[in-house]
Amino acid sequence: MYPTYGYAARDAASPLAPFEFQRRDLRELDVRIDVQFCGVCHSDLHQARNEWRNTLFPVVPGHEIVGRVTEVGKGVTRFKVGELVGVGCLVDSCRTCASCAEGLEQYCENGFVGTYNGIDRVSGDLTYGGYSTQLVVDEAFVLRVPENLDPAGAAPLLCAGITTYSPLRTWGAGPGKKVGIVGLGGLGHMGVKLAHAMGAHVVLFTTSPSKIEDGKRLGADEVVISKDPEQMKAHANSFDLIVNTVAAQHDLNPFIELLKRDGTMTLVGAPEHDHPSPQVFNLIFKRRRLAGSLIGGIAETQEMLDFCGQHGITSDIEMIKMQDINNAFERMLKSDVKYRFVIDIDSLRQ
Amino acid sequence: MYPTYGYAARDAASPLAPFEFQRRDLRELDVRIDVQFCGVCHSDLHQARNEWRNTLFPVVPGHEIVGRVTEVGKGVTRFKVGELVGVGCLVDSCRTCASCAEGLEQYCENGFVGTYNGIDRVSGDLTYGGYSTQLVVDEAFVLRVPENLDPAGAAPLLCAGITTYSPLRTWGAGPGKKVGIVGLGGLGHMGVKLAHAMGAHVVLFTTSPSKIEDGKRLGADEVVISKDPEQMKAHANSFDLIVNTVAAQHDLNPFIELLKRDGTMTLVGAPEHDHPSPQVFNLIFKRRRLAGSLIGGIAETQEMLDFCGQHGITSDIEMIKMQDINNAFERMLKSDVKYRFVIDIDSLRQ
Repeated sequence: MYPTYGYAARDAASPLAPFEFQRRDLRELDVRIDVQFCGVCHSDLHQARNEWRNTLFPVVPGHEIVGRVTEVGKGVTRFKVGELVGVGCLVDSCRTCASCAEGLEQYCENGFVGTYNGIDRVSGDLTYGGYSTQLVVDEAFVLRVPENLDPAGAAPLLCAGITTYSPLRTWGAGPGKKVGIVGLGGLGHMGVKLAHAMGAHVVLFTTSPSKIEDGKRLGADEVVISKDPEQMKAHANSFDLIVNTVAAQHDLNPFIELLKRDGTMTLVGAPEHDHPSPQVFNLIFKRRRLAGSLIGGIAETQEMLDFCGQHGITSDIEMIKMQDINNAFERMLKSDVKYRFVIDIDSLRQ
Repeated sequence: MYPTYGYAARDAASPLAPFEFQRRDLRELDVRIDVQFCGVCHSDLHQARNEWRNTLFPVVPGHEIVGRVTEVGKGVTRFKVGELVGVGCLVDSCRTCASCAEGLEQYCENGFVGTYNGIDRVSGDLTYGGYSTQLVVDEAFVLRVPENLDPAGAAPLLCAGITTYSPLRTWGAGPGKKVGIVGLGGLGHMGVKLAHAMGAHVVLFTTSPSKIEDGKRLGADEVVISKDPEQMKAHANSFDLIVNTVAAQHDLNPFIELLKRDGTMTLVGAPEHDHPSPQVFNLIFKRRRLAGSLIGGIAETQEMLDFCGQHGITSDIEMIKMQDINNAFERMLKSDVKYRFVIDIDSLRQ
């Protein structure tokens, strides 16, 4: 067993606080990782506060993890000590269902095992995430992080990156395609960078005129203030794909109306309360589609990391110490971050 | 000009009543058709009563039209006098936009011209539909009806048939696919027949246990009573495609939950009030899609008619006289028809 230091919420009402626990002895295919950096995802806050009503306490959040391999199990063939690696939202799945067989473990028919708040399939123990000094994970769920990327900026790729990369690939973003990204937060700013690197014509939708400049710097060809009906109207029936990253409840119709025939709007943010009903006529009259998408499978996550390595893409981050996490949660609630907090896990080792 | 006898609504509050009018002189590419049979679509009632708030009066409904060619314009090459032909929901479109260029005139970017309640692109006159003794239509919007089909039973193929055929084709219904059809009305019963003929495993969803037997007779492999949560649960995560023909407002979630990963539910019925909001989690966790689909283009409508000719598929109908139309509307509102009223237009010639 490996003594590990992390931060955990003991119950829904308590702030995160220091928490000491043990990582399991290595199984044959396990990789032990010294965590260097861990991104702060909105899901971490939802889970810590039990807002999805499924949290098992204590919860050690964190699923945007980058670190270095410190030890490998006897049967491990894919990783060596010292390599820069990442762990995202999943640490296991059934590996036998149709979705797993297709490399889409995030849609595992038997339920994937979350990096935290999951139940280990072998021991039945609760999984603990990346707000901690080290991690033990089966090599099948460990990703290789390109050495040319800043490891802190790479951490958010493991969730915010793949969550936007996967729908962009699934619905064919690329040259000649007009792609909208709704919302410029952690997910949205990755969506803009990735869609731009894929060669699409990228339009960022934001409610904040203050974000126009930043949107363009990140790779948007155009920025549309979504509250302005005139600006929206100018883009009617023109989008192949819109990736909507906004988790707050909002009216989907003004965006659906911007899709061209056979266009798709994909939701990647899960609101606490469902969005108002989309108008059926808006779907029928252009054969439009409204879809959802959940993170990505292991193979696609590796593809995304390699793509980011080739294009030099990382997240724009603000580094914090572990001890600042509760304040970071409050700032995240106010969207006061450009565009992702990343925890320097060395702050746990001092 | 050709004197023509039909039935029209003079205003939203009046019943349909006899109406005499002129069909235009033939243009070079026009085909004149003696209408034999015209199906009664729910849209006819919506438009006659101005329930979509866009009706131009007087309105002569009818867009499920079968008849014989009686005269052709000088430039007509595709049809000859005496041929059995059909006209569906469209009689013209811009013919130049991207959708028209792809043969998807129903999604014409400049707006297609409806068979009734449309505005002729040349003359600016209001179009009158198939509740009438004859029709004059550009040959590009005339369909060939297989001579082996009962012409009365073929009439509803022009709307109810293509409205279900098109999404079944678009989303790949066929052998090895599990396809749901929601609702056993005019559209639903065609959906069951067509999906069955395409080789899919067909499941009919209905709220009426009384329709189980009929559903199986029409081609359903299974019939599920959609109000029974246990029956619904047994089909969770198993459908490739669900074509939802129910125009009344209802909860979409119980059906979305039956889609497998990447499955699509396509709405072809337009409710007066939108359905309650679908749950975003239901879309995200299986990358499911909610879509809409509108009738079909001319090429696909011809393909559907040929398919029906090969498989001997027509609509189950109840024949009425034109004089019975107002009573038929009332019965249609109560779903008291198996499964489509078709008007014997000879009743207008007596």
